[in-house]
Amino acid sequence: MSNIKNRRWVLAEYPGGMPDADTFRLEEDIALPDLKDGEILVAARFLSVDPYMRGRISPAKNYAPGIEPGQLMTGGGVGEVIESRSGKFKVGDFAETMGFGWQQFAVLDGDADGIARVDANLAPIESSLGWLGMPGRTAYFGLFHVAQIKPGDCVVISAASGAVGQVAGQLAKHHGCRTVAVASSQAKLDWCAEIGFDAGVNYREAGDDLPAAMGMACPDGVDVYFDNTSGPIQDAVMLNLALGARIALCGTIALSATFGQPDIGLRLNRQLLINRSRMQGFLVTDFADHYDEANQALAAARNAGHLEFREDVMDGIEAMPAAFLKLLTSDNFGKQLIKI
Amino acid sequence: MSNIKNRRWVLAEYPGGMPDADTFRLEEDIALPDLKDGEILVAARFLSVDPYMRGRISPAKNYAPGIEPGQLMTGGGVGEVIESRSGKFKVGDFAETMGFGWQQFAVLDGDADGIARVDANLAPIESSLGWLGMPGRTAYFGLFHVAQIKPGDCVVISAASGAVGQVAGQLAKHHGCRTVAVASSQAKLDWCAEIGFDAGVNYREAGDDLPAAMGMACPDGVDVYFDNTSGPIQDAVMLNLALGARIALCGTIALSATFGQPDIGLRLNRQLLINRSRMQGFLVTDFADHYDEANQALAAARNAGHLEFREDVMDGIEAMPAAFLKLLTSDNFGKQLIKI
Repeated sequence: MSNIKNRRWVLAEYPGGMPDADTFRLEEDIALPDLKDGEILVAARFLSVDPYMRGRISPAKNYAPGIEPGQLMTGGGVGEVIESRSGKFKVGDFAETMGFGWQQFAVLDGDADGIARVDANLAPIESSLGWLGMPGRTAYFGLFHVAQIKPGDCVVISAASGAVGQVAGQLAKHHGCRTVAVASSQAKLDWCAEIGFDAGVNYREAGDDLPAAMGMACPDGVDVYFDNTSGPIQDAVMLNLALGARIALCGTIALSATFGQPDIGLRLNRQLLINRSRMQGFLVTDFADHYDEANQALAAARNAGHLEFREDVMDGIEAMPAAFLKLLTSDNFGKQLIKI
Repeated sequence: MSNIKNRRWVLAEYPGGMPDADTFRLEEDIALPDLKDGEILVAARFLSVDPYMRGRISPAKNYAPGIEPGQLMTGGGVGEVIESRSGKFKVGDFAETMGFGWQQFAVLDGDADGIARVDANLAPIESSLGWLGMPGRTAYFGLFHVAQIKPGDCVVISAASGAVGQVAGQLAKHHGCRTVAVASSQAKLDWCAEIGFDAGVNYREAGDDLPAAMGMACPDGVDVYFDNTSGPIQDAVMLNLALGARIALCGTIALSATFGQPDIGLRLNRQLLINRSRMQGFLVTDFADHYDEANQALAAARNAGHLEFREDVMDGIEAMPAAFLKLLTSDNFGKQLIKI
């Protein structure tokens, strides 16, 4: 214990817009506390950066408490148990939790909600941060519990090559839906086509013509929109809703650069009335009672060969802020991970 | 037949903003066609003006086809059958339909969807345009089918003293909800309190402080919003949502002055995500298969003394445009009718 020193990223200051080099601070040579009964010491193997973190480094109201300057950055991770005073984990086990934090070592309560033992024989351990973890479950609940997709639906998915989007696209396709990817580059759309998306829209290329491009891609209107972005992509969908459309609000990454500031623009809620449609926000944690159902569905899809998953892996704890910024600017390609 | 001449209002031109004296044109001495098999001739007794008509006199996309300049204005009405070639109606019966039009006499198909015989012994015939008609059913479906109210919910209702709002408030109250009226004057709020609303917000008086006023009226947040207005009242509710809130989008009367033009302002959809809430647009006609259910519930509430209904009656076909404009500017008080 005593000779292991931790390295961790804390929030240095709230970013005004897009986070930058001044937003986080690396702390080194941090002593680790002795384990208490029930606790485990975990050495990170993979850490995750996800769009929701933008909301946590803002003083604006959010669905979860924010990180204050000086505090450890929040984040999911999976690692190896190197010391245990928990009956649930032994040394050599792998543990995954959304509450790992941006750090090399974490002292965790083995009994906490949301900490899971990961079976490295079933899938690579980093899957627990991707298709078999929070992003995969988010895709599953958004489609089946919130949007209630049915065969034949035209399903538009923004950030389609991202961690959530790629899983959502493949699950919807396998359910008999027509799937439309929205992404920031042709390379991403090409890959989306490879994994089964029926059509694609490049929102950067479309620019102001995005509503028309969306209309071309969805000639009978959008039945379901899995919204990972908000912003102009949402607007374009709202102008192309089919009767009885369902919009699952999952994320607002397009608002990252101005997070917490007023979002002024075109207000399109009357479209919901005209098209008798609904828009519903959700969090994966709202469905904690259904995680087993989601995990089984995801594992079944993977085992049947219906679920590809692309990862974008950077190396080393030093890379965390760069990985996060890459994600917020859509310069990642696939689920962004950091290998420790 | 031949000696009865009709008077009717046609759309003269699309209004740019709020309709005015130039929007409609009264046509007089219009000959009535001879009845065909199945048709009835009905003399209007009460005609209705309703907020949805603003959407129909615009070239903007809407949920129903619009009226073009030169065409008869659309609208509901109830009247006496004065000639019949229908097996379903005899002379002296009362007939009600959303398809009456702004006219003194209507030739109607007795077999058409949505035409109903009105029993004058059950309730005054004008009730078929109010609490026992489209507005009453709209209130019922919005609360029970769309927002799915439950006892204990804090239910905010805009245009609360209007045709839909007053019914919604009383049904929600009787279901065990806490009800909050939003209206344009203290007189209206006083009357809302008389019929059982628990609290009231005067949006004109509150002005820019409307979000704070809404927060004071709903200290535990808004569980259900019955939205008859859109605009700043919706914004104020969005900033005060409770977890799991449901917004039933029924009307957008606050957008009347700029109908069809881009609505630029604060975009608050992230609130739906933060609060895991949903917003859903609906039309009463979506629930046509459930009209009997609604009618029975409304009649039961009325018979049990739980359902007051205030009407604002103007006289004569000449008054139709003035009645409509009064409605759009919130200068009516209760369900706006025109007695013919």
